[in-house]
Amino acid sequence: MTDLKDRILAGVSKDLSEIESAVSQNLNPHLELVSRVARHILFSGGKRLRPLLMILSARLCGYENRDAFSFSALFEYLHAATLLHDDLVDGADLRRGKQAAHHIWGNPTVVLVGDFLLARSLSLAARTGRPEIIRTIAGITEAMSQGEIQQLRLKGDPTITEADYMDIIRRKTAVLFEGACRSGALLAGLSDTQVSALGQYGADLGHAFQMADDLLDYTADTRVLGKAVGADLREGKLTLPLIYALAAADDAEKRFIRHLISSPALSLEAFRDLVKILHKRGGIAYTEHLAARYVQSAKEALGGFPPSPTRALLMDIADYALARKM
Amino acid sequence: MTDLKDRILAGVSKDLSEIESAVSQNLNPHLELVSRVARHILFSGGKRLRPLLMILSARLCGYENRDAFSFSALFEYLHAATLLHDDLVDGADLRRGKQAAHHIWGNPTVVLVGDFLLARSLSLAARTGRPEIIRTIAGITEAMSQGEIQQLRLKGDPTITEADYMDIIRRKTAVLFEGACRSGALLAGLSDTQVSALGQYGADLGHAFQMADDLLDYTADTRVLGKAVGADLREGKLTLPLIYALAAADDAEKRFIRHLISSPALSLEAFRDLVKILHKRGGIAYTEHLAARYVQSAKEALGGFPPSPTRALLMDIADYALARKM
Repeated sequence: MTDLKDRILAGVSKDLSEIESAVSQNLNPHLELVSRVARHILFSGGKRLRPLLMILSARLCGYENRDAFSFSALFEYLHAATLLHDDLVDGADLRRGKQAAHHIWGNPTVVLVGDFLLARSLSLAARTGRPEIIRTIAGITEAMSQGEIQQLRLKGDPTITEADYMDIIRRKTAVLFEGACRSGALLAGLSDTQVSALGQYGADLGHAFQMADDLLDYTADTRVLGKAVGADLREGKLTLPLIYALAAADDAEKRFIRHLISSPALSLEAFRDLVKILHKRGGIAYTEHLAARYVQSAKEALGGFPPSPTRALLMDIADYALARKM
Repeated sequence: MTDLKDRILAGVSKDLSEIESAVSQNLNPHLELVSRVARHILFSGGKRLRPLLMILSARLCGYENRDAFSFSALFEYLHAATLLHDDLVDGADLRRGKQAAHHIWGNPTVVLVGDFLLARSLSLAARTGRPEIIRTIAGITEAMSQGEIQQLRLKGDPTITEADYMDIIRRKTAVLFEGACRSGALLAGLSDTQVSALGQYGADLGHAFQMADDLLDYTADTRVLGKAVGADLREGKLTLPLIYALAAADDAEKRFIRHLISSPALSLEAFRDLVKILHKRGGIAYTEHLAARYVQSAKEALGGFPPSPTRALLMDIADYALARKM
């Protein structure tokens, strides 16, 4: 596991430092306040996974041009915009161990800085002058807002199904991963087949990544995670481990889970009991199993590309999506 | 005055009904809830001025194609997105005589539906496949969010200057008018000179329009306006009539105005006294005068186009920006 992480980091460290400066240099706000709020979320230890996927996808397709880094920043801006708006929508307290932006600057400013970041990412897309790329980026934004709305609509609703969940994570997470990988291939001017293959890799990886995230909310350490475990449940977000376990639970367990869903406070003890039920009723194992299938599918999507260090890195990243501890 | 309005309405009634169906048909949301919230703001008696300016600009440049109407809808979506987010940011109660959306559906939903409308407008822009148009639209969104942030930052700050005010209204209003007119010319594939001339017309009109709006907040009837007069001051938005009058006021008046700015409630009596001071100290007259100069400049920007019914309509619209009562 640590080997895997070290191997990935060694393979991408130069790219990550280029991405880091691109994220800093392309923000270009008119107002100091915008810069301060945007940087709070942009430089809080994000993994830069989305820009990185775009860079590696472009490289896999033979595209190696410095302008790719400026372009890649837009995926981090898009991600940051949705984090700002979502934390506000969810009433989240912490983000990556830091106070959520809306607690510091208030909702109005955070709404508007999120809008700025959305707009900035679309400006960067427009700068490519490539309509398919621009359409991809605009489509991502549409999908993400609708995924978040659907999640909000089903907040605390114990009748949520696995299909609802899959639909939500596709829109709110997988579409952005897919778009980052597709854009890399499009930038390289590759054929539809290769664009689709990389898009498939991204979409599968995005699904696996979100499922792993939702697992971590039940299984990780608060200290490692940078936010409180159990936060999803407290915010009314019912994810696959719980959805699956609830369906398989006996009557007493069902009552207990439904009670937790509807009560605003969640004690550590109740949370631990819940996690036991999620294990016992297969919610954890099922989610791990499904995520592993998505990882497998992501790797298979790269099968048409000849072996290369970049392809190996993308394979490692797929494995790491599930193996990571934060 | 009524002649002017009637003449404009007669000239654009067919266009307005095409725009109306384009606004309805291009929304295309995945979720019922998105549609409901978006329609609440989209079909609440908006004047469709921004799509109309785009259509008329394209026509002035000889472009007459039905796809222009679908495209024009994006300017209404962009406008609606900012209205949703701004009403939330301002804590506004009413919009066009109806309850503000965030009071009905809550802040989270309204933030996300605003995001959807932003994204939708950028998707429509991307559909043109024309990078300059897409860059224009992305640039509008960036400018608007920053204008709103600057307005928010200067909320209730009596040291706001005329230059601050002009900068805010340029970003939050004029840039969208300018972009609508520019996009019409770009769609027609016209030369830079003509694109710039129409852009200038739009920018000047946008300034005049916003100043007229800010005047109406002091001079109109609540019933006619569809929102309470004095709303700007209650929300801490200090506009040119007040900024100018405050600078020209004597000490007692200054104290009175500063007191009103800092007090949350505003009685009808105090508001009437304030309006008297704005008249006495020239705030109303100065704003009218400046707006009239922008109207004049907007009309002059069309001087390079040969006379035509469309040019006459655009001239009438410029005059109406200032003459309107709501």
